[in-house]
Amino acid sequence: MKGSNGDAPLTEIDPLNRTRFPADEWKLSERIYSKDDLGVTETLFAVGNGYLGMRGNVEEGREAHTHGTFINGFHEVWPIRHAEEAFGFARVGQTIVNVPDNKVMKLYVDDEPLLLSVADLESYDRSLDFRDGVLRREIIWRTPAGKRVKVTSERMVSFTQRHLAIMSIEVTMLDEGAPVVISSQVLNRQDGKDEYHVRAAAMGEGADPRKAEAFAERVLEPQTHWSGDDRILLGYRAANSKMTLAVGVDHQIDTENDYSQRMYADEDTGKMVYRVQARPGVPLKVTKTVAYHTSRGVPVRELVDRSRRTLDRVREQGVPQQFVEQREWLDAFWRRSDVEVAGQPELQQAIRWNLFQLAQATARAEQAGVPAKGVTGSGYGGHYFWDTEIYVLPFLTYTSPGMARSALRFRYNMLDAGRRRARDLTQRGALFPWRTINGEEASAYYAAGTAQYHIDADISYALCKYVAATGDDEFMWREGVDILVETARMWADLGFWREDGSRVFHIHGVTGPDEYTTVVNDNLFTNVMARFNLSKAAEVVQQMELSAPEAFERMVGRLGVTSEEVDEWAEVADAMAIPFDPQTGIHPQDSLFLEREVWDLERTPQSKRPLMLYYHPLVIYRFQVLKQADVVLALFLQGDHFTEAEKRADFEYYDAITTGDSTLSGVVQSIIAAEVGYHELALRYFTSSLFVDLVDLHGNTSDGVHVASTGGVWNALAYGFGGMRDYNGQITFDPRLPESWESLTFRVLLQGTRVRVHLTGDAIEFTAEEGNEPVVVSVRGRDLKVGAAGPVSVPLADQGPRIEADISLAAQRGGRREDGSLITATVPGL
Amino acid sequence: MKGSNGDAPLTEIDPLNRTRFPADEWKLSERIYSKDDLGVTETLFAVGNGYLGMRGNVEEGREAHTHGTFINGFHEVWPIRHAEEAFGFARVGQTIVNVPDNKVMKLYVDDEPLLLSVADLESYDRSLDFRDGVLRREIIWRTPAGKRVKVTSERMVSFTQRHLAIMSIEVTMLDEGAPVVISSQVLNRQDGKDEYHVRAAAMGEGADPRKAEAFAERVLEPQTHWSGDDRILLGYRAANSKMTLAVGVDHQIDTENDYSQRMYADEDTGKMVYRVQARPGVPLKVTKTVAYHTSRGVPVRELVDRSRRTLDRVREQGVPQQFVEQREWLDAFWRRSDVEVAGQPELQQAIRWNLFQLAQATARAEQAGVPAKGVTGSGYGGHYFWDTEIYVLPFLTYTSPGMARSALRFRYNMLDAGRRRARDLTQRGALFPWRTINGEEASAYYAAGTAQYHIDADISYALCKYVAATGDDEFMWREGVDILVETARMWADLGFWREDGSRVFHIHGVTGPDEYTTVVNDNLFTNVMARFNLSKAAEVVQQMELSAPEAFERMVGRLGVTSEEVDEWAEVADAMAIPFDPQTGIHPQDSLFLEREVWDLERTPQSKRPLMLYYHPLVIYRFQVLKQADVVLALFLQGDHFTEAEKRADFEYYDAITTGDSTLSGVVQSIIAAEVGYHELALRYFTSSLFVDLVDLHGNTSDGVHVASTGGVWNALAYGFGGMRDYNGQITFDPRLPESWESLTFRVLLQGTRVRVHLTGDAIEFTAEEGNEPVVVSVRGRDLKVGAAGPVSVPLADQGPRIEADISLAAQRGGRREDGSLITATVPGL
Repeated sequence: MKGSNGDAPLTEIDPLNRTRFPADEWKLSERIYSKDDLGVTETLFAVGNGYLGMRGNVEEGREAHTHGTFINGFHEVWPIRHAEEAFGFARVGQTIVNVPDNKVMKLYVDDEPLLLSVADLESYDRSLDFRDGVLRREIIWRTPAGKRVKVTSERMVSFTQRHLAIMSIEVTMLDEGAPVVISSQVLNRQDGKDEYHVRAAAMGEGADPRKAEAFAERVLEPQTHWSGDDRILLGYRAANSKMTLAVGVDHQIDTENDYSQRMYADEDTGKMVYRVQARPGVPLKVTKTVAYHTSRGVPVRELVDRSRRTLDRVREQGVPQQFVEQREWLDAFWRRSDVEVAGQPELQQAIRWNLFQLAQATARAEQAGVPAKGVTGSGYGGHYFWDTEIYVLPFLTYTSPGMARSALRFRYNMLDAGRRRARDLTQRGALFPWRTINGEEASAYYAAGTAQYHIDADISYALCKYVAATGDDEFMWREGVDILVETARMWADLGFWREDGSRVFHIHGVTGPDEYTTVVNDNLFTNVMARFNLSKAAEVVQQMELSAPEAFERMVGRLGVTSEEVDEWAEVADAMAIPFDPQTGIHPQDSLFLEREVWDLERTPQSKRPLMLYYHPLVIYRFQVLKQADVVLALFLQGDHFTEAEKRADFEYYDAITTGDSTLSGVVQSIIAAEVGYHELALRYFTSSLFVDLVDLHGNTSDGVHVASTGGVWNALAYGFGGMRDYNGQITFDPRLPESWESLTFRVLLQGTRVRVHLTGDAIEFTAEEGNEPVVVSVRGRDLKVGAAGPVSVPLADQGPRIEADISLAAQRGGRREDGSLITATVPGL
Repeated sequence: MKGSNGDAPLTEIDPLNRTRFPADEWKLSERIYSKDDLGVTETLFAVGNGYLGMRGNVEEGREAHTHGTFINGFHEVWPIRHAEEAFGFARVGQTIVNVPDNKVMKLYVDDEPLLLSVADLESYDRSLDFRDGVLRREIIWRTPAGKRVKVTSERMVSFTQRHLAIMSIEVTMLDEGAPVVISSQVLNRQDGKDEYHVRAAAMGEGADPRKAEAFAERVLEPQTHWSGDDRILLGYRAANSKMTLAVGVDHQIDTENDYSQRMYADEDTGKMVYRVQARPGVPLKVTKTVAYHTSRGVPVRELVDRSRRTLDRVREQGVPQQFVEQREWLDAFWRRSDVEVAGQPELQQAIRWNLFQLAQATARAEQAGVPAKGVTGSGYGGHYFWDTEIYVLPFLTYTSPGMARSALRFRYNMLDAGRRRARDLTQRGALFPWRTINGEEASAYYAAGTAQYHIDADISYALCKYVAATGDDEFMWREGVDILVETARMWADLGFWREDGSRVFHIHGVTGPDEYTTVVNDNLFTNVMARFNLSKAAEVVQQMELSAPEAFERMVGRLGVTSEEVDEWAEVADAMAIPFDPQTGIHPQDSLFLEREVWDLERTPQSKRPLMLYYHPLVIYRFQVLKQADVVLALFLQGDHFTEAEKRADFEYYDAITTGDSTLSGVVQSIIAAEVGYHELALRYFTSSLFVDLVDLHGNTSDGVHVASTGGVWNALAYGFGGMRDYNGQITFDPRLPESWESLTFRVLLQGTRVRVHLTGDAIEFTAEEGNEPVVVSVRGRDLKVGAAGPVSVPLADQGPRIEADISLAAQRGGRREDGSLITATVPGL
């Protein structure tokens, strides 16, 4: 598979440096400190709960790539200045704010500061534990004066109390005593002059569009600051978005040593300084309890009160109780969500790191969406994209449906903004913004943004999958149906009938998932997803009329739906244009795709990748070359509409011209590679997705975790190797266990019953772990009832077709002359 | 012709308010002052010479839409901030600067200022004389004290001395004496707080992309200021472009009255104040001589010296001599360039106003290009577009070939920048920027900018036409060929062969002239123009090898041209894809054009026009709707490649869906309407182009003259009604005189011989007015030798096909159901 991303930089299954990051199935550990890749490790060791996130900055606060603390949805707005204006261009830029940093707990021994990069460290161990959700660091430091000090610190963002974070540092002089100072700080870095700000401001020309915008003016306007005894309270309002924020900090010291303490607070800073006469062997421990409260409109004063209450509660309950609850929460999470690959500790660790990131990105997002980087970085400005619905929601739907529901309700709450946006684009119904925090379109580059109308269908798709898996009809009837109706209206209005006898419905001028080909006609992905959207809308409305007449009446009253338009949706869905090329037997990505030149990936050097950073969009768009799966994603999401032969032909064609320059690509290529029989390739794609952040394969892990890819890892496991599909409300399995794996075990929650799926080389076994209602799953057409009666097993003689991986797909694909040479008049970059 | 711009707001042939603007064949006069449309009249009464331009602001300096003085090419640069970045996006914004204003000569009588809008005016007359190139104003003002004052002023920008402008004001107390003050000023308005600046800064959101950018920071950094006796000298440097500027001003007073004078100058201001004890009937006249010198790099000191020399020369020669030379220059201009329509004084006036604007936009442009607004306003930022080559150069080539040569040399000097831009776009050869002042691409919106690769062919086309008409082979061989070679290389590299047996050469991902459909494949206009470019490049290189072997060798040494690549150009040209639809018999604008929905122009209200200000580009691009002629322009420029039937079918199809939202459209529609037989429509299109600024038909005349349209007016006269064509170096005629016109007379300079073409209803007559070599022209296939032997006349029984104008073209066009209703699933804007 030359030229595809299946053979990217990965040559081995486990590319981590195991001396530095030893394999451990339940945690990510680091044994060697390095200043060279702080951006990456800050992301890998970030802690968060979907609401509040703290990058894995060192406690000492100095050495950093980005000192980052982020609150999902807490953003500043700014007017987008287009260099050349046009009607309907996005107006309101939205950027996640770096909220005041509480991670800093500086340590001085004999007035010498600890600074890891120069410190004489006898030992260093940092680990993020997936079971108890705590980041721990333990070092033994030999001070410049030769005294050995043991320094242990912990950091935790609570899953059970979304506003709460707890940090501690414990210092023990091992050999002899010394004066020890702990300076615990809270710093408004957003408006400070620290590295983050300077770096962002310096980006200037040639900036990477994936990074967040920097602000030239003050963002967080101080509203109040207060300190007393052990507590600091700071309040802010964002200058333009007017969002409000309060931070509360409590401190506590436990030691047998003598000490004094001093408190200080001003508008941008809070400090608690402990001076301790540390005796050898007598530890001192400072614990810092932090509460963040934010709002779109509540006065700062009220948020300060809330912070005070959060802190008071922790004082009452005690800090240890928070750790107990954190563990309990995660125990439940892993019971619902764990995926096991037997006998592969390295893979197992990476899988759990990815799943843990999903928890950290979504658990307490609640009123907000799931940013592309979760709460681990400011990449993509903290915006919400379709990533959530297509890459993350399957995991949530089948393991934590309550979180899936929250994410969908978030979209429901954005409907009015979507209606306004549709009107801006001269369409009926609602058009969800391509990227947003507050519901308004923030995509300043419409060709690869606003033009991705498919987001409407993606949201409808995730909604329908959620309802089918959970049976939460009530949600559909009360709120979800509004999404379906308004998006169906958009599609019926956007497309048009061509009256050339064929009576086909076309959708023109849109961009599919692949951002290397934009503003096209009849994008296959868009059309099949719109078809789903339209027929589901019709189906749900008709079903409501029969099953829930009262809800139906209310819905009609609310939305004015008529039977004529419902009929139109069904009619339009049936007539949707589906590009197909009989000569090659493939589905062109859009009506003109096959007329384009084929980009010569084999002759494009790695120094020119990703293409988007080295070629003008006009150049890229002119070629058959993909940033990410497009048709192949359709083969996955709408697989019941494609034959096996079509899937294989499409996969082979597109795989050879897909760069994988987007991390949304690999997981999808893996799933379809597995389905059509490219087992080895499927595993390679899976592995490169699994390690995309752990090994920084895309070079931008420093901007935050690729959350969509972490969701995609679960998809690749359950759908790809597990062979699960969920078309038409049915759960089916046709597995593809990699030959090198002993077994694969995962869980899916179906109608409230948690089913453990255990796959080995020769059988698949289903066990109802929780829930009383039996559920039906189907293995290769054979229905099985899984319930209290115990495990059900089906033997499997083989696992799908197996195509030899050394087959040269490139030679089979189109776009070549008979002698096999590429049809490329232009060889970009050479 | 419903829905086309043929029946736009014009219902009569002459829409000017004749009470205010009386018809006069040789000047534009204004008899009623109005504050309501100052933006328009400032443009209509602007004076300039292609280098220096002054808007028609009133002398009093207060009431204005835009106080503007512009120097062609004198610009400031600024970093373009794209809201979302991508590789290769334009980086350097370029905006013409409002240079220090010398137009102000304030008048006070009894210390009461003259302010036209409130003054009690007994008479008012302002006129711009096309024969002597002087703007004159004469008013009789009754002061608040009841004294009558005659105020006469003049303003002239010299065609013979490009750096020179002269203004004067003469005041005579008619009834009784009074103290009179004249305050003559020079003001740096670019960095001042006047209306212009405030208005531009306030534009902010929703700005019209056709207007210039405002600057937040100081642009003109003062370098020197000096005053003494009657002279003021100011020097500046633009903060970022580092361009330099000097302004020198001399004053002179002529009067029998007693007076005193006072001079003042600081960094941003110069003032000469005369206090005169004016006796009744004793005139006083203040004359102001102004010199502007600019440079890209010469020190300000040197420019100050040049300004001093210009002023000294005028002192020596005297001011009256300047007016004599101005008149002589214009006499020669009109001898070369006049177009006469007998018996139609209103049309004649408008035609001469348009031709006069061409002189004002081009005469002394010399090292610079021709900005879209000439030097009459800052619209489009003072940028150069393809307008020059396609709309303006035919006029220059056939009437003032020296100016055509200057414009082409300007492009030649931009070749290196074009080579760099081609590399940015991953192409060989050179790609001229879509819009620029300094040679760098300044188009921040690539879809309707950079993607218009056709600019390469437009420049080559104009070059070849110039050489064919003048026989200036030496220019072609020494410099022009470099343009041809580098653009041919770009085309051969940009397109590609599709190896499907047909062996056709395709060009993908470009935008044609029509900006309502962007980034398409095989745009017909682009392909036929690229074909011309490629075959001409091959032809010229081959011809050079035979005719000018030394120049050929030098060229090969310079450009490394090989015979293989020359062969490739010819091969590519022969195989160029030309979209044609046998079913409708028309040429689709691009390979997919006919698959689009048809925009329902009939149901789009005027309040939603122009479309670009009311619809998102994505919406507009999705439909069959044109901003401007595209295929129809190809029918004109490459008419020898289309049959009569094709031209008619294409014209009828596209005319019905062309909005004419660009002023580049009407003149072209007029030419082809005339050719295919829609005589009445041709006249309507012509008239609306003729009056586009005079009646402000597009609502933005205040931004400056639509120079391309003024050039198009000449094209419509010579090519449209005159029926001239110049394919393959041959000059042919097949006229289409409007029935309502007695005769049409124009001149074309062919190989140095000026031929007067006189067309009446029944004959066409050619007279060699100047030059000794006889030239051959052809009338309907019959060759005529025109020379010293005297006029040659050919009788014409008819003038082309005549299609009844009431034929409903709309019913004939595609995109309709059988019952005649439009195929539009969406009705935008309704």
